[in-house]
Amino acid sequence: MPLLVVGSVALDSVETPTTTRDNVLGGSASYFAYAASYFTSVRLVSAVGEDWPDKHTQLLASRNIDTSGLVKIPGGKTFRWRGKYLEDMNDRETLDVQLNVYEQFDPVLPEAFRRCEFLFLANGPPAIQMRVMEQCPGARLTVADTMDLYIKQTREELLALLKKIDGLVLNDSEARLLTGDDNLVRAGHAVREMGPRFVVIKKGEHGAMFFSKHEIYVLPAYPTPDVVDPTGAGDSFGGGMMGYLAEQGNFEPKTLKEAMAYGTLVASFAVEDFSLDRLQQIEREDLDRRMADYRRMLSF
Amino acid sequence: MPLLVVGSVALDSVETPTTTRDNVLGGSASYFAYAASYFTSVRLVSAVGEDWPDKHTQLLASRNIDTSGLVKIPGGKTFRWRGKYLEDMNDRETLDVQLNVYEQFDPVLPEAFRRCEFLFLANGPPAIQMRVMEQCPGARLTVADTMDLYIKQTREELLALLKKIDGLVLNDSEARLLTGDDNLVRAGHAVREMGPRFVVIKKGEHGAMFFSKHEIYVLPAYPTPDVVDPTGAGDSFGGGMMGYLAEQGNFEPKTLKEAMAYGTLVASFAVEDFSLDRLQQIEREDLDRRMADYRRMLSF
Repeated sequence: MPLLVVGSVALDSVETPTTTRDNVLGGSASYFAYAASYFTSVRLVSAVGEDWPDKHTQLLASRNIDTSGLVKIPGGKTFRWRGKYLEDMNDRETLDVQLNVYEQFDPVLPEAFRRCEFLFLANGPPAIQMRVMEQCPGARLTVADTMDLYIKQTREELLALLKKIDGLVLNDSEARLLTGDDNLVRAGHAVREMGPRFVVIKKGEHGAMFFSKHEIYVLPAYPTPDVVDPTGAGDSFGGGMMGYLAEQGNFEPKTLKEAMAYGTLVASFAVEDFSLDRLQQIEREDLDRRMADYRRMLSF
Repeated sequence: MPLLVVGSVALDSVETPTTTRDNVLGGSASYFAYAASYFTSVRLVSAVGEDWPDKHTQLLASRNIDTSGLVKIPGGKTFRWRGKYLEDMNDRETLDVQLNVYEQFDPVLPEAFRRCEFLFLANGPPAIQMRVMEQCPGARLTVADTMDLYIKQTREELLALLKKIDGLVLNDSEARLLTGDDNLVRAGHAVREMGPRFVVIKKGEHGAMFFSKHEIYVLPAYPTPDVVDPTGAGDSFGGGMMGYLAEQGNFEPKTLKEAMAYGTLVASFAVEDFSLDRLQQIEREDLDRRMADYRRMLSF
């Protein structure tokens, strides 16, 4: 089944301890869409400026990604982010953010996209996420991401959104911030009690936790020695997870767990190079090979 | 098969965000021995002072732990540690350390202990760990723990020890310190290349990683919401792991992985209360029940 993602498309500049790469393809929806495209067709809604290189659109379109919802704003500039990773590659500093066209991004979905049954609201202002959701009344599964900025500045809107969505993915520090509880097991349950039927807490190199009313589990990250650039790992996780769910066409507990594992594995590839470079080198069969490894790793 | 552990026995004072407990039973060898006692008989070698409450010895002896190697030093004072956990229970500050009798602890093993086939060298000066090892020439499996102090101050002795032992367990920050590599996958392999046939990196609430020449895997921690006092979690992990190996009498890859899982689960109980309080409430069948849960959690 097709999967709709609404979120940012950006030009990133990334500094790691050994390398700097400027103006590479980034943004939550780019990583998400590419990651999901191993599993299903994807419909992307976002905005860019006149400085946006068409080759990036072509790259996305070369996968199973419908870019007809990627709007180029006349006179606008593309969202830009510059960040720097510290020595251990887990902590990063944001050096510069220029929201540009994304500042007033209030998506109007193309008519054909509104019947989408699987919807992902990438990180964005909760009020906007809500308006997107309202344009997809037939969605069977709506999952959102969020971030510290929105937890702090638009908490009420976020709490309203949580009552409407089926799932929320967020990272560990965001779960702590949202709930005020440092214990992630309690925090995960507390977020679930705010509304969503399931919650996924992403822990970066330490994997991800899943919470539903009847189930809680932790899956470790796949241990790759080649962490080159962690940017987009969480969005790739989300894309792999939602892509697999859309492919399977259901979100039974068993399917959700497999989806968590696929998300983990797409993310483990994504961090092995800058931007989408590593993902461009792999196909579904590489994911399935790593999945076999991962299952072996967790069996005893 | 009996398991020999040589390490510290202490009186701990622990401050958590909600509670302070003074002079409770602590020390690496206490946690280790109690954790191992679910699986096998344990022989404990350590030293205490005249201030040592006999009830602690009785508690250990009430399990399958031979305390005849626990020496009371005339005129001596027991090793004391005071620590404080910060809000998130992952970071802690050591407020005070009084090595006391442990300062000059140079163990001479009782004759009956020298034929032990499974040996654990809890955290201590590597030169002392080496001398203990030399007293057990018939050990089939020798595993050691270490810590930042010894990595910094007695690196040469530690490197000499690493060439002699079969396995090393250490925590994530220690692995980074020892190798200078922030990526734990690379760091684990680098430690293994220093000598031991296998290396276990403990990541606290994020689980543990295993490295051998042919295998690497990560097992997540069991997600308990009731983290009351993390003191001794790593030593309980080691005790559960080594206890299971000694019980099984082998250290084949399959047994090692099961042992890692049991170590994880004993540690998950140990943190649910201060000192050995929670461990005193459980039996092997509680571990096996949690193991069934844990296997379910990792199956998909």
